[in-house]
Amino acid sequence: MLEKLKEEVLEANLDLVKKNLVISTWGNVSGYDKESGLVVIKASGVHYDEMGIEHMVVVDLDGKVVEGDYVPSTDTPTHIELYKVFGDEGIRGIVHTHSQFATMWAQFGRDIPDYGTTHSDYFYGNIPCTRKMAPEEIAGEYEKNTGSVILERFREISCRRMNAVLVHSHGPFVWGEDPKAAVLHSQVLEYISKMAYCNYVMSEGKLPFIQEELKNKHYNRKFGEDAYYGQRHKG
Amino acid sequence: MLEKLKEEVLEANLDLVKKNLVISTWGNVSGYDKESGLVVIKASGVHYDEMGIEHMVVVDLDGKVVEGDYVPSTDTPTHIELYKVFGDEGIRGIVHTHSQFATMWAQFGRDIPDYGTTHSDYFYGNIPCTRKMAPEEIAGEYEKNTGSVILERFREISCRRMNAVLVHSHGPFVWGEDPKAAVLHSQVLEYISKMAYCNYVMSEGKLPFIQEELKNKHYNRKFGEDAYYGQRHKG
Amino acid sequence: MLEKLKEEVLEANLDLVKKNLVISTWGNVSGYDKESGLVVIKASGVHYDEMGIEHMVVVDLDGKVVEGDYVPSTDTPTHIELYKVFGDEGIRGIVHTHSQFATMWAQFGRDIPDYGTTHSDYFYGNIPCTRKMAPEEIAGEYEKNTGSVILERFREISCRRMNAVLVHSHGPFVWGEDPKAAVLHSQVLEYISKMAYCNYVMSEGKLPFIQEELKNKHYNRKFGEDAYYGQRHKG
Amino acid sequence: MLEKLKEEVLEANLDLVKKNLVISTWGNVSGYDKESGLVVIKASGVHYDEMGIEHMVVVDLDGKVVEGDYVPSTDTPTHIELYKVFGDEGIRGIVHTHSQFATMWAQFGRDIPDYGTTHSDYFYGNIPCTRKMAPEEIAGEYEKNTGSVILERFREISCRRMNAVLVHSHGPFVWGEDPKAAVLHSQVLEYISKMAYCNYVMSEGKLPFIQEELKNKHYNRKFGEDAYYGQRHKG
Repeated sequence: MLEKLKEEVLEANLDLVKKNLVISTWGNVSGYDKESGLVVIKASGVHYDEMGIEHMVVVDLDGKVVEGDYVPSTDTPTHIELYKVFGDEGIRGIVHTHSQFATMWAQFGRDIPDYGTTHSDYFYGNIPCTRKMAPEEIAGEYEKNTGSVILERFREISCRRMNAVLVHSHGPFVWGEDPKAAVLHSQVLEYISKMAYCNYVMSEGKLPFIQEELKNKHYNRKFGEDAYYGQRHKG
Repeated sequence: MLEKLKEEVLEANLDLVKKNLVISTWGNVSGYDKESGLVVIKASGVHYDEMGIEHMVVVDLDGKVVEGDYVPSTDTPTHIELYKVFGDEGIRGIVHTHSQFATMWAQFGRDIPDYGTTHSDYFYGNIPCTRKMAPEEIAGEYEKNTGSVILERFREISCRRMNAVLVHSHGPFVWGEDPKAAVLHSQVLEYISKMAYCNYVMSEGKLPFIQEELKNKHYNRKFGEDAYYGQRHKG
Repeated sequence: MLEKLKEEVLEANLDLVKKNLVISTWGNVSGYDKESGLVVIKASGVHYDEMGIEHMVVVDLDGKVVEGDYVPSTDTPTHIELYKVFGDEGIRGIVHTHSQFATMWAQFGRDIPDYGTTHSDYFYGNIPCTRKMAPEEIAGEYEKNTGSVILERFREISCRRMNAVLVHSHGPFVWGEDPKAAVLHSQVLEYISKMAYCNYVMSEGKLPFIQEELKNKHYNRKFGEDAYYGQRHKG
Repeated sequence: MLEKLKEEVLEANLDLVKKNLVISTWGNVSGYDKESGLVVIKASGVHYDEMGIEHMVVVDLDGKVVEGDYVPSTDTPTHIELYKVFGDEGIRGIVHTHSQFATMWAQFGRDIPDYGTTHSDYFYGNIPCTRKMAPEEIAGEYEKNTGSVILERFREISCRRMNAVLVHSHGPFVWGEDPKAAVLHSQVLEYISKMAYCNYVMSEGKLPFIQEELKNKHYNRKFGEDAYYGQRHKG
């Protein structure tokens, strides 16, 4: 069942280790098959050096395990909440990590400021951070509610132009058009988070954001209608 | 004698190098066999690239060498003091390193603030730092007294919910239910120490701790009575 | 066509990965053949682990592709603008990266202060940062105009004594007498950018520049008329 | 001639790369043979990946090349000045690097504060930084004068208890009882320099030094008369 997607999700999970975005059993990647409405996600608490295709669990959008001998990631309900909405926009892969600089910004509880073109090349504007969750949201269906507070923040933001969010006091969730793209966006998020940290410290938080025109130029030359970066748009 | 434990302790020592927690001859891991009341610990001053099973020294709780041709780690009396008390709580492995960010916090002489869920996933609350040792404690049985000031700090803290301590001006001691778990906790301690450093600098020390509810939620979903992280609690 | 130069440019591009100066498809290296007036440059958006000699595109100084099946780097017009002027000074290789600390300084929008001999060994004085580009420069021929604002900054600076520039809010362009030298200068730029960041933070931006005499001494013992560093000047 | 020492010096030079203390052609290690009064030192400007035994040049204490086809390191006169004095104290190896955090402190122009036991385990007290050199010292025999300003700082400091110095605006020189020990001390210097940087930033330079008693205890348990760290002092 969904063998190709399982392979993609497995490979994406293992790639998190190579890109230094996770240690131990941390983090998780999922992939979404829109036709069947099924999600493939890493099993909970499995070490990356022991991970195989058998740890890729298939769940439906109610969180029920459809295939697999393992308990899926505890964060599965968060992924599902996001696919329910972002799936309609073409999102097919989601990554959660505690990568250090992105997580540090989540702990700081503020949007990551867009200070330059490296950021704008991938994310359109500041990376949003969610509000703190209320005690009853934490006590209730915590992981599902984590998805809800993310979606609350994205009411006015397009998930296609902003592929990442910081969950307050927790860490980043990142997505893309497939699991591989979501991993790349996670790597870029960590990269720019470190630079933004340094800029924030140097300027005591006073550095202005990138110019609007430059932000638009860089984002659009890669992802806009008249994009001309890469080989896709050739000829 | 205690061959299995020696293997575990050797592997845990070597793992400190792979996880970038030690250089040169620094650091040490021990394991505790409660039944016999014996401790296996690394020999003093041995380079990790020359370390073999023969460098695993067996000592009793009086610090007497029971087996082994090498002098045990100078920190052996600290390990023993901790096993005497924490051994009753199920602690079977202790690690000492000078890993950079944890040691930096120890030099700073303050508890590591719990700023997020990565911290709370493993350590319940701020990581405690001991008081400075008195001149007579330093001049006397220094390594044994190091154990005493740690225990002093843990009178009101459970060693099962808090697997680490910072010794003031020195560095971390970390433990767990076996040597391997103690190494993992050391790795996580270093990871969160770096993030806490960045958050401290950005906020000039003013960032509030994580919400109580979120701290409890994350700690308990891994280690509480109704834990549901990982495969252990399945079915 | 230009097979030797293509090999040099390919090797220099791959070297950016080994030196941790790029991730994903980022960055680019070009080489210039003054006799023919042709530039060899990396194709746009190609992953480094899939890069081969076929991705080395040959363009003329009007930006027209002379040989190659791929679209050249989007930054090609910037490289060309620089070769048109710096080519007369002997510059034969240009590198563009988003290496973290150099890019962070570009985002900060300030010259990198010359705080020590490591800097002065390679770059004569502070590393210049360009002015912000005007909206019409961004909306127009953006990449060509990027070259123009760089050249504007070099009216009073020798490109032989200063092998690097920061493009405001963007990142570094670096050059040398061949592609390999340009990569080395990129690596050194990143190295000194990190140290300058630390010094800036520690001193709250107040650390004075290196003494003039020491700056001159270090630069000249490597690159001055009476240079005596290395084996070149022997005998 | 001095084949064993050449091997030691070559290995120590290559070890600088493995320990991430140098890039490119930077840095140098020398060894001193007191009996013959000869110094073995790396050739100037040689890349580490091309370095062989033939690049180990033998010079006498007047700086004259006694054996070898290459120009010795430009820093040779500094090494010689130090051996002339420190050689009587048993120093047999000297290392010069531009390792990042130690160099950053040199650029900051201040002694590295002794904030903890990791520092005190190897260096007795703050790591001294030299004064700025006078214009005429820079214009004259610069590298020899670099040695002189180091020695000036060591009039009241023992080179056996303090194995390192920062040359103002430049970088560290480090030594030991053989080239291998000098490399280890360089590695430890870089390690503690990073921690001291963090502590300095967190405390805005106000963190007090380690307690005198703790400093003495740690230094002496490794290097004092009644040292008991390691296997040397056994039985």
